[in-house]
Amino acid sequence: MTHPTADDPTATDAASKNPTSMDPLGPCDTFLHRHIGPGAEQTAQMLAALGFDSLDALTKRAVPDVIQTERPLTLGPARGEHELLEELAQVAAKNKVLRSFIGMGYHGTITPPIIQRNILENPGWYTQYTPYQAEISQGRLEALFNFQTMVAELTGLPVTNSSLLDEGTAAAEAMGLCYAAARQKKKRFFVAADCHPQTIAVIRTRAEALGIEVEVGDILDAEFDSSTCGVIAQYPTSDGRIIDYTAVADRVHKARALFCVAADIMALVLLKSPAEIGADICVGTTQRFGVPMGYGGPHAAFIATSDKYKRQIPGRIIGLSKDSAGNPALRLALQTREQHIRREKATSNICTAQVLLAVMAGMYAVYHGPDGLRAIARRIHAATSILAAGLTEMGLTLADAPFFDTLRVGVGNADTVMAAALARGINLRKIDASTIGVSLDETVTQRDLADLLLAFAPAGTTAPTVDALRSAATRGIDATLLRTDEFLAHPVFKTYHAETEMLRYLHRLQDRDLSLVQSMISLGSCTMKLNGTSEMLPVTWPEFGALHPFVPRNQAQGYTEMFEHLESQLAEITGFDAVSLQPNAGAQGEYTGLLVIRACHRDNDQGHRNVCIIPTSAHGTNPASAVMAGMKVVLVQCDDNGNIDVADLRAKAEQHADNLAALMVTYPSTHGVFERPIREICAIIHENGGLVYMDGANMNAQVGLCRPGEMGADVCHLNLHKTFCIPHGGGGPGMGPIGVVAKLAPYLPGHPVVDMAGEKAIGPVSAAPWGSASILPISYVYILLLGDLGLTKATQIAILNANYMAKRLETEYDVLYRGDGDLNAHEFILDFRGFEESAHVTVEDVAKRLMDYGFHAPTMSFPVPGTLMIEPTESESKAELDRFCDAMLLIREEIRAIEEGRMDAADNALKNAPHTAAAVTANEWSHPYTREQAAFPAPWVESHKFWPPVARIDNVYGDRNLICACPPIEDYAE
Amino acid sequence: MTHPTADDPTATDAASKNPTSMDPLGPCDTFLHRHIGPGAEQTAQMLAALGFDSLDALTKRAVPDVIQTERPLTLGPARGEHELLEELAQVAAKNKVLRSFIGMGYHGTITPPIIQRNILENPGWYTQYTPYQAEISQGRLEALFNFQTMVAELTGLPVTNSSLLDEGTAAAEAMGLCYAAARQKKKRFFVAADCHPQTIAVIRTRAEALGIEVEVGDILDAEFDSSTCGVIAQYPTSDGRIIDYTAVADRVHKARALFCVAADIMALVLLKSPAEIGADICVGTTQRFGVPMGYGGPHAAFIATSDKYKRQIPGRIIGLSKDSAGNPALRLALQTREQHIRREKATSNICTAQVLLAVMAGMYAVYHGPDGLRAIARRIHAATSILAAGLTEMGLTLADAPFFDTLRVGVGNADTVMAAALARGINLRKIDASTIGVSLDETVTQRDLADLLLAFAPAGTTAPTVDALRSAATRGIDATLLRTDEFLAHPVFKTYHAETEMLRYLHRLQDRDLSLVQSMISLGSCTMKLNGTSEMLPVTWPEFGALHPFVPRNQAQGYTEMFEHLESQLAEITGFDAVSLQPNAGAQGEYTGLLVIRACHRDNDQGHRNVCIIPTSAHGTNPASAVMAGMKVVLVQCDDNGNIDVADLRAKAEQHADNLAALMVTYPSTHGVFERPIREICAIIHENGGLVYMDGANMNAQVGLCRPGEMGADVCHLNLHKTFCIPHGGGGPGMGPIGVVAKLAPYLPGHPVVDMAGEKAIGPVSAAPWGSASILPISYVYILLLGDLGLTKATQIAILNANYMAKRLETEYDVLYRGDGDLNAHEFILDFRGFEESAHVTVEDVAKRLMDYGFHAPTMSFPVPGTLMIEPTESESKAELDRFCDAMLLIREEIRAIEEGRMDAADNALKNAPHTAAAVTANEWSHPYTREQAAFPAPWVESHKFWPPVARIDNVYGDRNLICACPPIEDYAE
Repeated sequence: MTHPTADDPTATDAASKNPTSMDPLGPCDTFLHRHIGPGAEQTAQMLAALGFDSLDALTKRAVPDVIQTERPLTLGPARGEHELLEELAQVAAKNKVLRSFIGMGYHGTITPPIIQRNILENPGWYTQYTPYQAEISQGRLEALFNFQTMVAELTGLPVTNSSLLDEGTAAAEAMGLCYAAARQKKKRFFVAADCHPQTIAVIRTRAEALGIEVEVGDILDAEFDSSTCGVIAQYPTSDGRIIDYTAVADRVHKARALFCVAADIMALVLLKSPAEIGADICVGTTQRFGVPMGYGGPHAAFIATSDKYKRQIPGRIIGLSKDSAGNPALRLALQTREQHIRREKATSNICTAQVLLAVMAGMYAVYHGPDGLRAIARRIHAATSILAAGLTEMGLTLADAPFFDTLRVGVGNADTVMAAALARGINLRKIDASTIGVSLDETVTQRDLADLLLAFAPAGTTAPTVDALRSAATRGIDATLLRTDEFLAHPVFKTYHAETEMLRYLHRLQDRDLSLVQSMISLGSCTMKLNGTSEMLPVTWPEFGALHPFVPRNQAQGYTEMFEHLESQLAEITGFDAVSLQPNAGAQGEYTGLLVIRACHRDNDQGHRNVCIIPTSAHGTNPASAVMAGMKVVLVQCDDNGNIDVADLRAKAEQHADNLAALMVTYPSTHGVFERPIREICAIIHENGGLVYMDGANMNAQVGLCRPGEMGADVCHLNLHKTFCIPHGGGGPGMGPIGVVAKLAPYLPGHPVVDMAGEKAIGPVSAAPWGSASILPISYVYILLLGDLGLTKATQIAILNANYMAKRLETEYDVLYRGDGDLNAHEFILDFRGFEESAHVTVEDVAKRLMDYGFHAPTMSFPVPGTLMIEPTESESKAELDRFCDAMLLIREEIRAIEEGRMDAADNALKNAPHTAAAVTANEWSHPYTREQAAFPAPWVESHKFWPPVARIDNVYGDRNLICACPPIEDYAE
Repeated sequence: MTHPTADDPTATDAASKNPTSMDPLGPCDTFLHRHIGPGAEQTAQMLAALGFDSLDALTKRAVPDVIQTERPLTLGPARGEHELLEELAQVAAKNKVLRSFIGMGYHGTITPPIIQRNILENPGWYTQYTPYQAEISQGRLEALFNFQTMVAELTGLPVTNSSLLDEGTAAAEAMGLCYAAARQKKKRFFVAADCHPQTIAVIRTRAEALGIEVEVGDILDAEFDSSTCGVIAQYPTSDGRIIDYTAVADRVHKARALFCVAADIMALVLLKSPAEIGADICVGTTQRFGVPMGYGGPHAAFIATSDKYKRQIPGRIIGLSKDSAGNPALRLALQTREQHIRREKATSNICTAQVLLAVMAGMYAVYHGPDGLRAIARRIHAATSILAAGLTEMGLTLADAPFFDTLRVGVGNADTVMAAALARGINLRKIDASTIGVSLDETVTQRDLADLLLAFAPAGTTAPTVDALRSAATRGIDATLLRTDEFLAHPVFKTYHAETEMLRYLHRLQDRDLSLVQSMISLGSCTMKLNGTSEMLPVTWPEFGALHPFVPRNQAQGYTEMFEHLESQLAEITGFDAVSLQPNAGAQGEYTGLLVIRACHRDNDQGHRNVCIIPTSAHGTNPASAVMAGMKVVLVQCDDNGNIDVADLRAKAEQHADNLAALMVTYPSTHGVFERPIREICAIIHENGGLVYMDGANMNAQVGLCRPGEMGADVCHLNLHKTFCIPHGGGGPGMGPIGVVAKLAPYLPGHPVVDMAGEKAIGPVSAAPWGSASILPISYVYILLLGDLGLTKATQIAILNANYMAKRLETEYDVLYRGDGDLNAHEFILDFRGFEESAHVTVEDVAKRLMDYGFHAPTMSFPVPGTLMIEPTESESKAELDRFCDAMLLIREEIRAIEEGRMDAADNALKNAPHTAAAVTANEWSHPYTREQAAFPAPWVESHKFWPPVARIDNVYGDRNLICACPPIEDYAE
């Protein structure tokens, strides 16, 4: 055991001092000075600019003394990168990578190496932000448009989005859509009993909070009536039977309900599309399109529906529009549907989705094309047919129905078969004491089939050989069940099959997107910090990637060990007693936290408590989550300084004291301020019988300095993709675990398949027991690499960086809100509203103009319209902060020129931003500013130039003419 | 065992047909349609354009019937990517990854993850070509400039190059430099006996051929006289002693000889620089600066010397110059020294070097900076000091000399200690029966030290604990031996220590370079084909990367198995009987092949045979290699069609019949033509007592269609980095194994440390027994993925692609040479000489203008001045070929406009090419063509635009003012 050297967090020279000074054998590759941007000298300069002589002095002033922790973190010293990865490899080796033919929505898959290396392991893709700034996101928008096209064509339903979190939550969203379509007047939702059990359970959890009555039963016998808002069936069923639901759909429609299908994406390659058999909505997962199982996630789920429900569909839709030059351009469509606008009227809280995984799945389809997908699907079916023939020959009973890849096998003793399979390194699904499920996938080999036949062979029976069964491979599926329509006919699915072509396509798209590899993305509230390579490496280790979520727990001991450590790390950081790793996005964490609060009230005979107080400054997901958790939202105002109006809060709390369930509060506030009275605020809620939910979006300002649990919060979610280094992936994956006080621990979510919680546990909120398990090593490694002192210093630098920028910019811009001591927390808001009058310049003009300087705009118009919220994070160097500030100050000069009449108010570099290369090299140039001013407005831009591939995009046009999938092939014939 | 489906090579629809049609369980992920660019339809279109109805018909016409093989390849069917990688992982698992503290020039190292992911595993870096087109190679040129700066400052010698192949060959090059500096008049070269044994052996091999007398002895006692051209010493010695060679250097200089030092790069961080102790030349390897040991390579070696010898230094030097706008720009300096100009007057044949690895090592220094490097070196020394104290305490004898990281330990019985160490998973160096060498590195941990102490503990002795020895860590090295000068003071070594900064620096550099991720690089004779991801993945598996080359053979059984398979695959492809994998570049293969021929002649009492006939069209490395192998070059002329003048050949062969040693011949010829009389040519040589060396640079036109061994060649080298998919890495690594007929097999090279050859073997030509072992999986996987039919089809498509392009371009350009049937092989030459007169346009203008179109120029002015040689390879799609042809045809129109007086002859888009973004967006634009014509000369350029970061570079200026390392820090003070 070595004793690693921690960088001294109180010193300002961590980056330059000799790492071995403390222990001659301590590792040289400690990470703190890699993770934080400013070196010692830069830190000292920034502190001096702010008038502080140490980081501690700064943060003691910035963080209210009443909440400063007296108990420093105890997470151990910083570890060296190399030794930690070696140690984690040993933990990972405790996971046993067997072959899993369990099915249930998770399948072995072959990730095309070109996709693994160039997307999943490529910071140019995984460090992208959500594509709100569409002009510099065209690459990933095209990739997501491919994904949507793939989903639309395979499901036959034209309106789809750019991914949901998992199949279970997608099914719950489908139910929500049915319920909303019925204007919440029809309370009954029918679920076919042969859906995946975790899907049923997630639906139940969601339904219970919304007051929807879920009925689970045999769909072929069920009756639907005027109280039925929707019906969902699995296609093929969880145990593998292909059912043509056309007649069922007719019955559903007769009851004026909507018919939902949860479909297997690979089966859809061969089978009639859900639309063809009458589905109004289709959901599913695209995991088996090249995304590793990862012990449950992350994977991209989908939802598709008809044009009629395009304004009800949850999540983010990529739509085609045009730019100011008239060229086609992609962007997020129908933004008005999103919860950050609709707030408590939203029907879904989905925000972070699974963009990176959707990109991968879409690229899997691009890489294979329709013929390649058909070949894969047919091979899987052929292998299943061979297995079926062998099982039948051995006298075993199969379900009397057509199958695609999954067989329901009646056996003498299921445990005996499970054991025989395990002995051959194979996991199967035990359906009941005498029934086994087996589900094949594209990784299946002849050897696997031989092993399966041996495992199933009843005592005394000789298993037939695969070769002897080979003729069964050609049996195929009955033609009446097969699709006959052409799909994926767009050239994008037929052009990039050679690897060189695919490589260049991926890189062309990547080059159209600005990501952290180019410049800082100072997205307020989104904490776009370094996603360290050492943190990312374990994600694609097979020991983490290749595990089915429902393998026996003893095959996942490495994961279990990591979960336990990570839970205790997060508990220590937040000051809570227990942590659930199940919620796989921040908004999921909010929803889960409120469900837990609700369960606690109910368990204490306070089930009537349903009022949730939320400040007007809250993230839009807060009210949306509250509604989804069955609560009523009561708003509390902010004062002139942007802080919660404590008097109003007290009044509202007292007014609703009998029914008060919770307060949702973000800390530091969404205005980037450490609000001093936070303890008092929590006390008020507690005094009135409520519990406090803290939104952890801004946790990056707290780690090591204060703790939610110490200031009175009862629950807090953590965006691991913000504070704890999981990359944003262009809009996901994320993870939103929650920490809770001891009295809430019994209610943390359980799971119907994996035994993980007690009897008081609420139902699952995600399809997988530990959410997106395979990205948890990222946060785990981050915490261990920094250690307790390093984590604290990171927070301090985050606060320093924000305040340094605010200081530099305050001379020319109004900094909207500040805390006591005239300091901000880790982010701050610049106000641009005055320029609309003085120069006809909007905050959007500034955001687009930043692109010409090579920068991504900060968070625009949240939480205050007409502002930019800037969060630099600790990972940006002073040089980068200065470059950004320089850009902002130069833009201020550009605005001043308009104000002073030196520049045309309608034709200027701000209004015309961003400028494409085509525009500035065009033969014509009629603007009253030069091409150089347009494209290279500062000397340093040349070495940092990022050319926006399109000009300013017309959002209105795109919303009026919604196109969310590639047009049909006829449009390409010329 | 599955029976994989091979794509049918005779069919033209391989890319689109159902891969499972032959075997329902065959893999869906076969690779042929990924590797070759054109799909079925494109192939058919190209064949039609050439007037053929099948690929076979085409290649039966292109390849002379007299050499077409009658024996199709028997390498087995194509394998699926997934199953093959799983199988290879099992082979790799037969390599045992233990801790190796063997030293001898190979050390454990920590590759910074950011460098591994973003350089070594990034196609944007590894698919770059050699930076001959400097304007679009500025990124890697800067990286190499960093490498040169690092070497220059650590050695104290100002002139250095951008890498050599390994330390052994670098030492041999140093000897060559000493010999050349003495005008080949002083024949004695002294080698200190305590140099690494493989270095001594490689020097001996080289010396023997050149007629230099090598004397190995104790350098402190040795006498040097007027016959001594040079002396080389190891610093520290191979067994770890630090010797201040100042007095030795004085004695060497008194003898008017040059003093060479082979230095450990990590030791130089602490020790006095070689220049300070009197070295004129310093060589070494940078492996331990973050490059995995890889069972011997690839790694970047270095050579540095004083300004006096700048025109003698071998290899490629990166130099600073300026572009036409006056901005600083980097490029290859002093090109006139290179063997492709000097040919038989060259003193070195070095061509491919180790660019990718040099980039990595340079970036290791950038990432750590001088303080970080010092910390690492001090930690290594501290660990060694602790170990030394423990060994001493246990009564063992250490060498009586200061040490850095290596100890020479006298023990009772070396075998006993070796066994005890092995039992703890540690490899040591057995120096003799009672002496052990142990060499620590940056991976060493406290546990390693504890294990070492236990392993060394004599029977009955209790090993002290590491903690008890800790005070020894501070002992340090005697100050008189330490360097006191500042080094790596340039800002580049102090700015990018935070990972975000490093990431952006790497990506900024990457964006300045055009590589295969952007567009085709149709480098004639260089075969820039797809470097498939599946081929690349195993390279960074620890089982291949972490092995020391001198571990016991039983720890490298996976490698051994792969070597044997690969050797037999290459033998089958070439038609030879034996293969040596030792030469680690093409020119090394030439040199080795000639040495083997020479050894054979000598063994047959024909030692006087020393004439090597070489056609005038040969690669420049051919005559250089011949001279290095001790042969005299006799040139044979080409006829008007560019083919070898057979009559002249016969005349020369007969004239030199008594002394004829060999013919060197490239096939197909360097003119891209299958010369019909190749059998006759070989026969003439054989009749006159010579052997035939075939240069395999153009093997990509032969694989599966014909075999060197069948047409009469006796030896052939294979550029695995051309035909067999090892990426070019921006100028290396490469591998140049040779195949030989049975009678030459006994002479294939051996190795002094690893027992691998018989008694007739020539000495080693590389430092490591199997050259750059860790990149051999690339070629191995490629061959297995394509299988025999696929390899053949790849060759056919390569020939199709070349001929299709020639057909499209012949209407506007002269295609210089063609074979029988009016076809080319896999490449062709376009003649631009006429345009100099008609339009004052040179081939260089065309090459630079291609950059504006987003293309890298083909091979320029080789083998014929004023021409471009185009080799598209099979991996490029018809769409890409057409795009390139379109660009060439548009350029022809641009030339015509000049010819016809419609465009100014001095101020036009060709002369001013390439155009930077700064140039086309400048406020001033005075050219007689538009900005659009400059930057976007075709509609499709916009989606493929690559902006050259600098304008045309001034080569003459750079050569007159040679700057090959960052200027000293004073130049940066402001």
